[in-house]
Amino acid sequence: MNQDTPSGEDSLIARYFKPLATDPGAFGLLDDAAIIKAEGCDIVVNTDAIIEGVHYLPDDPADSVARKALRVNLSDLAAKGAVPAGFVLTLALRRADDSWLSAFARGLAEDATAFGCPLLGGDTVATPGPIMISITAWGRVPVGRMVHRFGARPGDRVMVSGTIGDASLGLAILQGRPAAAAVADDPAARDMLIDRYRVPQPRNALAAVVREFATASMDVSDGLAGDLTKLCAASTLSADIDLSKVPLSSAAAKLLARGAADLAAMMSGGDDYEILCTVPEARCDAFADEARRVGVAVADIGSIVAGVACPRFLDGRGAEIPLKHLSFSHF
Amino acid sequence: MNQDTPSGEDSLIARYFKPLATDPGAFGLLDDAAIIKAEGCDIVVNTDAIIEGVHYLPDDPADSVARKALRVNLSDLAAKGAVPAGFVLTLALRRADDSWLSAFARGLAEDATAFGCPLLGGDTVATPGPIMISITAWGRVPVGRMVHRFGARPGDRVMVSGTIGDASLGLAILQGRPAAAAVADDPAARDMLIDRYRVPQPRNALAAVVREFATASMDVSDGLAGDLTKLCAASTLSADIDLSKVPLSSAAAKLLARGAADLAAMMSGGDDYEILCTVPEARCDAFADEARRVGVAVADIGSIVAGVACPRFLDGRGAEIPLKHLSFSHF
Repeated sequence: MNQDTPSGEDSLIARYFKPLATDPGAFGLLDDAAIIKAEGCDIVVNTDAIIEGVHYLPDDPADSVARKALRVNLSDLAAKGAVPAGFVLTLALRRADDSWLSAFARGLAEDATAFGCPLLGGDTVATPGPIMISITAWGRVPVGRMVHRFGARPGDRVMVSGTIGDASLGLAILQGRPAAAAVADDPAARDMLIDRYRVPQPRNALAAVVREFATASMDVSDGLAGDLTKLCAASTLSADIDLSKVPLSSAAAKLLARGAADLAAMMSGGDDYEILCTVPEARCDAFADEARRVGVAVADIGSIVAGVACPRFLDGRGAEIPLKHLSFSHF
Repeated sequence: MNQDTPSGEDSLIARYFKPLATDPGAFGLLDDAAIIKAEGCDIVVNTDAIIEGVHYLPDDPADSVARKALRVNLSDLAAKGAVPAGFVLTLALRRADDSWLSAFARGLAEDATAFGCPLLGGDTVATPGPIMISITAWGRVPVGRMVHRFGARPGDRVMVSGTIGDASLGLAILQGRPAAAAVADDPAARDMLIDRYRVPQPRNALAAVVREFATASMDVSDGLAGDLTKLCAASTLSADIDLSKVPLSSAAAKLLARGAADLAAMMSGGDDYEILCTVPEARCDAFADEARRVGVAVADIGSIVAGVACPRFLDGRGAEIPLKHLSFSHF
């Protein structure tokens, strides 16, 4: 053996992942560690893993799996007001399947470029089990300016970006549940909802606006109801949400109107990857204006109130709608 | 449901992992991200995963599994000359088994304290497959002072810490291979070798000395022969190693003498987690003195030479010993 015939693992890394290692701190993935430069900022770090059959379906396209793995982390950075700076990847595979790997690497490379978040290192290991992709991503915020899950104040408005519930409907469609039949005659709606499940749209464009206006912020990954409950708990407060104001896509609204979707399930379903934040009432309009300026729609869905009860989800007439399961939990 | 009954996942994190989150940047694991402070240093980041049945045996004690997961990362930081600063943990479990988790968290907590490397965040997910533990750890080095895999120069001495081959023998014993019978009458040797497999001894005490003296450095995780090959390749150089100088434990030496161990397999076996570095010949004695001062034995095992051939492993008479498999590769 000579140095021109590296191990399968090294060859795999060189072939698929070295092109993503564009940051000088990555040393072309040829060192054992990378360097993160703080550049006078605080470094915000986050880690999230996705597992085949748990967080994505085994026949989801490999490029969308890669995008989801990175984007669920980018979404956290956005909610914290941080600008993406890089990530490391742990990839556990049953075998080195070239067609899967090349699609995976392509999706990852495109997103790394699009979001300005280069690969800095990783570990590729064999597993006899499902594919697992664990990413640790970091970003930069001005010192002391990370937006926390805590910090909401009574009277703050509860704001959410984008639309809620699409991803849970996309999963329902892929699983052949009633929503699937209801969109059989509307392929555009079907594709949009499935895409929302497979490829989150992290709101990194909104990060600086969140930093400027939000008193508390987190991303909605495990369901709006449960994540809002966590945000309220972190501030020892509660919230009243007007369900009629929660933004829905027209596809989701149609399914609801046809009785093929359940609003409570959409409020507690996962994979939205929108930003949930609280903004002082007096600054709400300015926040929405700035959000619009960066191309992200935000909606005012309710208010932070005193108390430590679970947030209440109220219908248009102010009656509380009970949510059985607030959010997804692995255990 | 009220806020006193968090999800199983949140409760698991609060119970087992919050006590490890002693760094202020961890926000008690109650936020969605953590903050790393550079403190005027470069931040060195590394990620390594271990999988049940691949990197450790299913019946290895949970506390040693935790230690191994953290220590394989600490070992990389040590080789880079970095002082550990923190880590994030991805833990994929089939179920929340309290006795396994409490032992795991205890081992992790003890090592996090012992190595000054607090938990800053993580993700706990369900998997239908084997347990997987992925850790991303970071440390600090003075700006521009990370020790690279490249940088060796012809004439540099090749130095290695501790002893080589013990972990591969420990694994052989646990797998019932010939070494197992050979240590049946020597429980102390048996336990030592198994312990070397299960619980690496990362040489973080040596980090500052490596930074001061080494021209190139990496940790030995996939086998001395293969890792030295990588180090040489990174510097476009080769090496001549005197196999009689590679440090062996007395237990390993005894097994060799009895014909129950294979030297070539020990040189290419994994899991040593020692530091392999190159030091200019004129500074070798000072390096060894400083290493001794911090309690780590180092041995001079050969020299860096010009050329791009694979490093040669020579016996006491200068004859080359062929190594069939240079190192462990997952694919």
